[in-house]
Amino acid sequence: MSSSDLKKSKPEIKSWAASASILVDVAMGRKPADLVVRNGRLVSVYSGEIVAGIDIAIVEGRFAYVGHDATHCIGATTKVVDAEGRYLVPGLCDAHMHVESGMVTVTEFTRAVVPHGTTSMFIDPHEIANVLGLEGVRLMHDEAMAMPVNVYVQMPSCVPSAPGLENGGAEIGAAEVLEAMSWPNIIGLGEVMNFPGVANNDPIMRGVIDATMNAGKTVGGHYASPDLGRAFHGYVAGGPEDDHEGTRAEDAIARVRQGMRAMLRLGSAWYDVASQVKAITEQGLDSRNFILCTDDSHSGTLVHEGHMDRVVRHAIAQGLKPVTAIQMATINTAQHFRLEREIGSITPGRRADFLIVSDLSALTIERVYGRGVLLAEQGKLLADIAPYAYPEKAKNTVKLARKFSAQDFDIKSPKPTKNVTARVIGVIENQAPTRALEAELSVSDGIVQMDRRNDVCQIALVERHRGTGQITNAYVSGFGYTLDCALASTVAHDSHHIIAVGTNKDDMAKAVNRLGEIGGGVVLYSKGRELACIEMPIAGLMSDERAEIVAAKADKLVKAMAAMGCTLNNAYMQHSLLALVVIPELRISDIGLVDVRCFEKVDLFL
Amino acid sequence: MSSSDLKKSKPEIKSWAASASILVDVAMGRKPADLVVRNGRLVSVYSGEIVAGIDIAIVEGRFAYVGHDATHCIGATTKVVDAEGRYLVPGLCDAHMHVESGMVTVTEFTRAVVPHGTTSMFIDPHEIANVLGLEGVRLMHDEAMAMPVNVYVQMPSCVPSAPGLENGGAEIGAAEVLEAMSWPNIIGLGEVMNFPGVANNDPIMRGVIDATMNAGKTVGGHYASPDLGRAFHGYVAGGPEDDHEGTRAEDAIARVRQGMRAMLRLGSAWYDVASQVKAITEQGLDSRNFILCTDDSHSGTLVHEGHMDRVVRHAIAQGLKPVTAIQMATINTAQHFRLEREIGSITPGRRADFLIVSDLSALTIERVYGRGVLLAEQGKLLADIAPYAYPEKAKNTVKLARKFSAQDFDIKSPKPTKNVTARVIGVIENQAPTRALEAELSVSDGIVQMDRRNDVCQIALVERHRGTGQITNAYVSGFGYTLDCALASTVAHDSHHIIAVGTNKDDMAKAVNRLGEIGGGVVLYSKGRELACIEMPIAGLMSDERAEIVAAKADKLVKAMAAMGCTLNNAYMQHSLLALVVIPELRISDIGLVDVRCFEKVDLFL
Repeated sequence: MSSSDLKKSKPEIKSWAASASILVDVAMGRKPADLVVRNGRLVSVYSGEIVAGIDIAIVEGRFAYVGHDATHCIGATTKVVDAEGRYLVPGLCDAHMHVESGMVTVTEFTRAVVPHGTTSMFIDPHEIANVLGLEGVRLMHDEAMAMPVNVYVQMPSCVPSAPGLENGGAEIGAAEVLEAMSWPNIIGLGEVMNFPGVANNDPIMRGVIDATMNAGKTVGGHYASPDLGRAFHGYVAGGPEDDHEGTRAEDAIARVRQGMRAMLRLGSAWYDVASQVKAITEQGLDSRNFILCTDDSHSGTLVHEGHMDRVVRHAIAQGLKPVTAIQMATINTAQHFRLEREIGSITPGRRADFLIVSDLSALTIERVYGRGVLLAEQGKLLADIAPYAYPEKAKNTVKLARKFSAQDFDIKSPKPTKNVTARVIGVIENQAPTRALEAELSVSDGIVQMDRRNDVCQIALVERHRGTGQITNAYVSGFGYTLDCALASTVAHDSHHIIAVGTNKDDMAKAVNRLGEIGGGVVLYSKGRELACIEMPIAGLMSDERAEIVAAKADKLVKAMAAMGCTLNNAYMQHSLLALVVIPELRISDIGLVDVRCFEKVDLFL
Repeated sequence: MSSSDLKKSKPEIKSWAASASILVDVAMGRKPADLVVRNGRLVSVYSGEIVAGIDIAIVEGRFAYVGHDATHCIGATTKVVDAEGRYLVPGLCDAHMHVESGMVTVTEFTRAVVPHGTTSMFIDPHEIANVLGLEGVRLMHDEAMAMPVNVYVQMPSCVPSAPGLENGGAEIGAAEVLEAMSWPNIIGLGEVMNFPGVANNDPIMRGVIDATMNAGKTVGGHYASPDLGRAFHGYVAGGPEDDHEGTRAEDAIARVRQGMRAMLRLGSAWYDVASQVKAITEQGLDSRNFILCTDDSHSGTLVHEGHMDRVVRHAIAQGLKPVTAIQMATINTAQHFRLEREIGSITPGRRADFLIVSDLSALTIERVYGRGVLLAEQGKLLADIAPYAYPEKAKNTVKLARKFSAQDFDIKSPKPTKNVTARVIGVIENQAPTRALEAELSVSDGIVQMDRRNDVCQIALVERHRGTGQITNAYVSGFGYTLDCALASTVAHDSHHIIAVGTNKDDMAKAVNRLGEIGGGVVLYSKGRELACIEMPIAGLMSDERAEIVAAKADKLVKAMAAMGCTLNNAYMQHSLLALVVIPELRISDIGLVDVRCFEKVDLFL
């Protein structure tokens, strides 16, 4: 990046210092505010109270005055809104999330969540980093800065997720993290998933953490283990400051006692708030170090259920006082990221991000303001957010060596027998871990055959970053496909090659080839015909369409998969995790089959 | 300052990042800790709990492990201490204070307060800044860094306190603040006392605040007015982040609702905790934005009553839970100054500053550790803290043009009458404000006479920074001196010239001359004889002796003043405030008499 690029991408809102003179002038009644909202009930996240009869005055996108009478801030040019006793709530913050999980761009994600009251997001563009490296992170970083709300970027820390066990599109090390720390919109380091690496002083993990600590930024944690013994303490001593991987109350308590912040997660498939919030509601812990986040939300969740409003409502339903739940989605998050002078409260100087809410426990959001501008009303987006143009390079990431054919997916028998015993990846519904299964398969003309009756079909990982033509073929069980078909996806955590799963090799080839033509996404083929397709041309990870369109396409895909016999919940998500070589037991990667119980490559046949 | 100076003065403790590998190794049991403390009751300021059965392991001055069993951290070289179920409390933090108020150096102040459990101080060297400017601040900054505990420096913001109404030894503007922000031990801007300046967008005030905000550091506030109307809101919009000038519960509540932190003060003469803590104990506000501090402590207070331990005990006695009061003197302070990853809790990675306490409500401190080193036990300092050598320049600041004589204090009558009416500064016991009085005084040989019977004696402000020989003579009432005497002091807030108050002009001259000889301090003369003296050679503000010696000298001074007829409580402190031209009503300065109700110079005679 050149320094001129950096200058161009400065956020539009001026700093508090740069606006201070006019903020003071408005507070003193010497200059008119841009906007005055009168007669609200302030949800004061600093004092933990609700204060009635509050007026707020805004200028240059920041709160200038918060008090009982803003008459003196009103001039001829001031827009005046009567809150009529409704609640004034700080805009909600999502403390840790991946935009890519929505399969849309930052822009489309923002369009989808702003009507739900989200005005600040802390995004970890970990997926694009695995495809496009630092350059991909920079693209999302710059897109994030163009938003009318606050989208801060956490620099991905673990790319690849498992060095030596996979080769993805890019690598991130200490040098890349050090460079990113100087970018204007990098808020810290993204989830440090390699927790054994931290506890073992792995040099790359130490390098990326040290670069972040030395920059004074927040080190995001990800300790995905129920073991709260020595390994946990080693991880904490290494520097991560938060964790969203806890699932039990004891996990949250252990993290907070260690001086970390417990991030409680309600995503599309994560339900970790109810159990952990008991640390506050039942065990009486100080709530200040508890934070709410989503981590991963599908487009369907955003469109049908909401975003941070859904999480706050859920937290209130678990017995939290509304003010406490709101603190956990506003000021607690802001403090964690050293941003309490910028966001997370309705107090002078801060960015004027706030909601007008009619029912606090139900969190009924009537209006959403970002930097003093009305962005959404009654769930409808009003803001005009221009689409962000990704460069061609970011849209041309599915590099296939050639047209593939059914023969590319033939698996030769290792010996001249009628039957062989193969290792099989066993899918578990609604869970990220897999099982390491075995199956006896028949051999015909030297080629090992699938066993549809016993739900054993083929899985292939097709290299797509460098066009090497390399394919890893293996077996998978659990999807339940009963008809001829194949599902292929360029969303294939974390290396994001192509994963194809099929009962028919010709369909596998066609599905893979189709992804090459459209630049990535998810496609379902049956008997040579395309049944469903979600195009994701940006890095093969994100659509450039609206979230509602993507959600509709995903719905269509799920239905078509069910028609093929696969009725698992959101099975295309399960599909996309089968190359995640950091979660046990058995996975596929470009180096072969990997047994994640021992972090070793294993043979396909026993 | 040259860059080599800056390098020399790096703090001795390594950063968390630099120590992280060994912290992890100790937590994992791969390397031995330096110190393990077993079987404590942890006061967890993160979770707000007390957790029994906790071991802590320390290496390189930081906590490596905090958990239920540190056996694996113990090696042959590890010192092991059994806490026998006593409480483990984070070292106490004083969030805002002036070392100069103790009339001792940073070193001697530290020696005095460490046995009381203070392991972090946020000092504003405002007094020395008025004498020696940026260079004086740097001297105390460097002395602070040599301490075995954490002494962070707030850059003075208002020097002089009232531009145009006084000329002190130095001035501080935006350029000086900008330079100081790059020093390694500057934590933010000291109390912004010129609150009308902030509300009126005074360019110097904006300059110093903006420089601090742009450096990402904490802007200290000082809004010394009960008016919570427009001027208060203007001040808050200008950027100050805390305030220790509140006295009523409503003051604290107003500040916290505005997103500031309310600092509740218990100094030698400030009693602002009891009233304001009711915001928490009676009104139920979230305590996280309330902080305890001392602001000003005399040596006598430190020696006889304590420091932050005294404040925490007092706060508990007002009805706070012990854990809450401790949070207000530890983690709340650390968060405010963006230091929660360094100090304020017993959690991995942080500096190992902690107390072993036998009774939590009484805060009975048995041991004090700083950076893992035992510094004090049973109230006795064990640490060997070397005296800090101040350069000659800092000890040669009382520059008198000549030997003064009684005639220098003659006040000529403005007209040839027998009586004149003069303005008189009226002292109020135990209060900083004065009264603007008037008195009819007789004239003899053209010289206006004092009126001892009506307690009207003379006050003089003698220029001492540039040796101009300039004297302002005026009248004061309220001290009650009944005998021939004079008290003179180079501690004379904020310009720190010499203030002499006397019933006898020859004693006034002798007292002033004596201060010239000893380089500053406070002296009491009667009939040509010195009755008491506290030498303060460093900038005329600080002794280089021990706090207990200074306290003994101050006791002797108070007794000698009483013998002269002055029985006001700590009247030498009152004396030192008579040139403070920012607090109403009438004050003396080098430009003459100042009416602080209208911020204007007024004539001595009506």
